[in-house]
Amino acid sequence: MACSGSQCSYSADKVNYLTQENAVALDQDLFNEYKFSVDQLMELAGLSVATAVARVYPATTHKSALIICGPGNNGGDGLVAARHMTLFGYSVAVYYPKRTANTLYENLLWQCEKFGVNIINDLPQPEELKNEYKVLVDALFGFSFKPPVREALKPALDALIYSGLPVCSVDIPSGWHVEKGPDSENSLKPALLISLSAPKLCAKPEILKNVKHFLGGRFLPPGIVQKYNLTLPPYQAQDQVVEL
Amino acid sequence: MACSGSQCSYSADKVNYLTQENAVALDQDLFNEYKFSVDQLMELAGLSVATAVARVYPATTHKSALIICGPGNNGGDGLVAARHMTLFGYSVAVYYPKRTANTLYENLLWQCEKFGVNIINDLPQPEELKNEYKVLVDALFGFSFKPPVREALKPALDALIYSGLPVCSVDIPSGWHVEKGPDSENSLKPALLISLSAPKLCAKPEILKNVKHFLGGRFLPPGIVQKYNLTLPPYQAQDQVVEL
Repeated sequence: MACSGSQCSYSADKVNYLTQENAVALDQDLFNEYKFSVDQLMELAGLSVATAVARVYPATTHKSALIICGPGNNGGDGLVAARHMTLFGYSVAVYYPKRTANTLYENLLWQCEKFGVNIINDLPQPEELKNEYKVLVDALFGFSFKPPVREALKPALDALIYSGLPVCSVDIPSGWHVEKGPDSENSLKPALLISLSAPKLCAKPEILKNVKHFLGGRFLPPGIVQKYNLTLPPYQAQDQVVEL
Repeated sequence: MACSGSQCSYSADKVNYLTQENAVALDQDLFNEYKFSVDQLMELAGLSVATAVARVYPATTHKSALIICGPGNNGGDGLVAARHMTLFGYSVAVYYPKRTANTLYENLLWQCEKFGVNIINDLPQPEELKNEYKVLVDALFGFSFKPPVREALKPALDALIYSGLPVCSVDIPSGWHVEKGPDSENSLKPALLISLSAPKLCAKPEILKNVKHFLGGRFLPPGIVQKYNLTLPPYQAQDQVVEL
């Protein structure tokens, strides 16, 4: 537990959770009102994803990692995490089937390649993933996801659901309703969720149940915390993630 | 010590140090060959500066910090560090006398203001700084510095030299020759140096002597390590700084 005894200055019950609408609005505020660049925040978000993954599934025991990246910012966070994970000692592969035609994303992918990340174009069948990887990172869909899943991304989601490997989801477990969580028994069951900036409603303990849960993206200005009336767990020292 | 016993897989004697020419070339490689944006690397550099400062001079004992920023990338690292230091619990002021007309720098300054950093336009006399601050961060000149110091920045350098406060220098102690170190007895005597990406020649132990020394900027691709034949201390776990 990240929070126990005198270390604990918040109650897990008091953490509040963003609606999809507020998650979108908060993100817009960071770029428009606070003038952050996507490069800046994606770097910090991806670093915190890599950090949380490494805390729970260290490279010493889970060296071979596959990161499944979607076309939006969630996928970009995954590309950044891939690079930091190589620095943390992982052997990393990335599957990135729908690429965003955008300089930042192209450069992030380029950086991955130059850091030795293996960019794979063919995804093995879900049951074969265990032969090659020890842990999966789900950077497929983020907080702006609305169903249905498009056909071209279904194999990627199936890999996450049916591999039997531990899945670390970035911000939202892919395919989940951002507010209500999984919509069927066949929905993704992540082992770890890394909420970014602030948890969304689907990350409530009664929905997550046995999922390990970290908060990352330590970059919220006080004005945002106030505007969205956020009560968040306190980060310790200079740490970029905190376990809820 | 960051490195002792079985934790220690390098010898301090083997760490190698960049010439000014190679420091400039390595930096260019990161942007040109590896296609990093300044936003990305400055965010990681500034975070590691803030982290090292907080390890040595924690906010609990050194709450009030003044960051002195120069016009170049070193100053930009300082602006990023200022923001992260507010998140680490510091009360931060920034003195930034020569501002760079560039969107990134303007936005970094804007973010500082929105995070509650106090941007001061008048620098107190060196001997008065102790009344207001507990620690100074020197983000004045970086690895491209060549003497002489221009007139408009002399008061900033004097503040760093004569305040009597502990000074944490970003990458290069300001005013030092990048390869030879201090050129007179009146040169800056930092208490802490945070080398970024790789230490420069002026950071050799026989020059630094009693200065605490950290390495930050954990973003070097393996191709750069190879090209410049770098032997660097290994970062521990997910840490963004390592003490030499």
